[in-house]
Amino acid sequence: MALIIQKFGGTSVGTIDKIRHVAARVVATQKAGNDVIVVVSAMAGETDRLINLAHEMIDKPDEREYDVMVSTGEQVSVALLSMAIQSMGYKALSLLGFQIKISTNSDFTKARIEDIDSQRITKELLKGNILVVAGFQGVDEQENITTLGRGGSDTTAVALAGVLKADVCEIYTDVEGVYTTDPTICPNARKLERIAYDEMLEMASLGAKVLHTRSVEFAKKHNVTIHVRSTFSRNSGTMVMKEDITMEKVLVSGVTYNRNESKITVVRVPDKPGVASKIFTPISEANLNVDMIIQNVSEDGFTDLTFTVPETDLKHALEVVSGVVKEIGAADVQFDKDIVKVSIVGVGMRSHAGVAAKMFNVLASEGINIMMISTSEIKVSCIVNAKYTELAVRVLHDAFELGEEVAVEE
Amino acid sequence: MALIIQKFGGTSVGTIDKIRHVAARVVATQKAGNDVIVVVSAMAGETDRLINLAHEMIDKPDEREYDVMVSTGEQVSVALLSMAIQSMGYKALSLLGFQIKISTNSDFTKARIEDIDSQRITKELLKGNILVVAGFQGVDEQENITTLGRGGSDTTAVALAGVLKADVCEIYTDVEGVYTTDPTICPNARKLERIAYDEMLEMASLGAKVLHTRSVEFAKKHNVTIHVRSTFSRNSGTMVMKEDITMEKVLVSGVTYNRNESKITVVRVPDKPGVASKIFTPISEANLNVDMIIQNVSEDGFTDLTFTVPETDLKHALEVVSGVVKEIGAADVQFDKDIVKVSIVGVGMRSHAGVAAKMFNVLASEGINIMMISTSEIKVSCIVNAKYTELAVRVLHDAFELGEEVAVEE
Repeated sequence: MALIIQKFGGTSVGTIDKIRHVAARVVATQKAGNDVIVVVSAMAGETDRLINLAHEMIDKPDEREYDVMVSTGEQVSVALLSMAIQSMGYKALSLLGFQIKISTNSDFTKARIEDIDSQRITKELLKGNILVVAGFQGVDEQENITTLGRGGSDTTAVALAGVLKADVCEIYTDVEGVYTTDPTICPNARKLERIAYDEMLEMASLGAKVLHTRSVEFAKKHNVTIHVRSTFSRNSGTMVMKEDITMEKVLVSGVTYNRNESKITVVRVPDKPGVASKIFTPISEANLNVDMIIQNVSEDGFTDLTFTVPETDLKHALEVVSGVVKEIGAADVQFDKDIVKVSIVGVGMRSHAGVAAKMFNVLASEGINIMMISTSEIKVSCIVNAKYTELAVRVLHDAFELGEEVAVEE
Repeated sequence: MALIIQKFGGTSVGTIDKIRHVAARVVATQKAGNDVIVVVSAMAGETDRLINLAHEMIDKPDEREYDVMVSTGEQVSVALLSMAIQSMGYKALSLLGFQIKISTNSDFTKARIEDIDSQRITKELLKGNILVVAGFQGVDEQENITTLGRGGSDTTAVALAGVLKADVCEIYTDVEGVYTTDPTICPNARKLERIAYDEMLEMASLGAKVLHTRSVEFAKKHNVTIHVRSTFSRNSGTMVMKEDITMEKVLVSGVTYNRNESKITVVRVPDKPGVASKIFTPISEANLNVDMIIQNVSEDGFTDLTFTVPETDLKHALEVVSGVVKEIGAADVQFDKDIVKVSIVGVGMRSHAGVAAKMFNVLASEGINIMMISTSEIKVSCIVNAKYTELAVRVLHDAFELGEEVAVEE
């Protein structure tokens, strides 16, 4: 008998009928002889409704009270799913963060799970219950309700799987799994059977929306195998798991892109020690998230300094930078929202040289100018003009033979 | 410095603006130098929305899961009210049943409060917080969420007042207090300054909708003074409190009526031992609530047996009674929905004779036929034809000089 954790997101439990569909799926898993714990998010739209209500009351709601409020979304859906399972004649029990309990720090709206008590869960499973756990929520030391931030229900599921040593943690989504790239851009994008944690982390943070970074980090740390699969089909999806030798034989596993980036250039910065620090200290103090930074070769004692920030932070970042431009004696600040970050990801790069060069060649051969480059052990990212997004993704996907027709796995 | 508990119902917190109004009221109470704990219900309509959602899923929802669901209504309103108080620059903290904690038995949907832990409340009050407590909810020994049934938020407020030895428990409603009778029937109905617990219990159970019976029972047991007053005015309302000597000088404090009664008559019942038991045992086993019972004087070995049940139970009661009619050899079962129970209530009756006789005379002088009578130490109730409701209430209100123009208190 296996222990299976299943997580269903807001769209999967968006209506009474959809909740019934999820119930049938969960019951089938138990009937197949497994212990089942199902983690659910709030019904689609419900969290937004609650957030709007809070903002109608006050611009910046107190974060503790905000968590009290938004956590009701999951509370409603666990009760409804339990009722749905019971209506099919099976035993179900909902459990909230405080009842389990899921202990977090007190960092309201983005708390981190510190511990999960397995006592009640184990007891209730022994009684034959399907356990329906509220995702996204926990309690701190004082029993204040906390929420885990975006993608929090994924984290709840993975954390439960880790603590309970579940056989698998199934994350249900509206797609069939993790793809080599966005299928709306490359119709021949291929579903990956397996992907390593580190690759998934790069894919997630680079713009693939299937799993949230924090849940993958958690899975990697506790060696939890995640099965990303579709709510609407029985096909197996993608296993997110520990890297193994066959994975390393593949050069590149996926191509991703992220349009929500902006580029800021500080023009004619005097090239002397301490200048970069004068620019980036206030930026980090303002909690702005800088991704890539490049500094041109110095000419006649001056240089240009370019960096990227998320588009949502652009306005704030420009204000901060404009404040120091005069102080450091730079000429001007320019920005460009019309860019995209295109990346290739693969653990195989660790042991293969020449992958980055191939990427640059492929882009160049299409006349796509590369504005900025950043690399890590397992990815290469290029900033290019946003108009080339689809073209760049397609030529890279083809060049690294990721498509359906050509099998690249052995 | 006094400790004041204030309770606001669903209509008082029905919109963002109304919640702001409540916040202003609560803050004013703190500014006047008091410690304040405010208990709130779910926003008007919210509990119904949740109940409908549950019933959309399943006809008879599991009661534990039902409580998980409906308790979210109060969770949302405590968060919103806390935010509203904070937006005015004051310190507020919401507390749910499990956080306080409010311990109940496991009788889901109608649990009874067994204990309230005052530790966290005391600590948070010392920090200068206005505490915003979710009414209607608690947790059982296993930390399952329970709800207290109808009027549960009143009970929460009174129970808190009892445990914390609050100076007063203010219950805010949409009326100015407890009236001598229904002002829509008697325009000169007078707001009572004070009313004894036992009178209030009779008034509440007889149809006055201001306070729920259970909260008054709790107040009586723990000697909590309840101040029933209006959300929309600054006038003082009605103090529900321990009986004192001045109260006893008043013969009658109020006239009430209840239209939701039905009368069932079992015709020509053989008048022999054990027959009543054969009728009422199955009725009580079916959890049907019988109020008044009368048995006519026996003629030729047969009698008629008449009793009342709430109109909502009539159909069920008729089914049960029809099942035993043949067995006991009775002739027929008849019923009448077109009745009303009119009552006079007053602790003064204990020490004054002739109050009941006066009531019968007053009704008779208007040609109102009395079908059934029941009395207790402090009330007399008569069942009459429903068409006389307003007339009966008005003549009794006048006869006992309860109206505005004539001062009956000394």
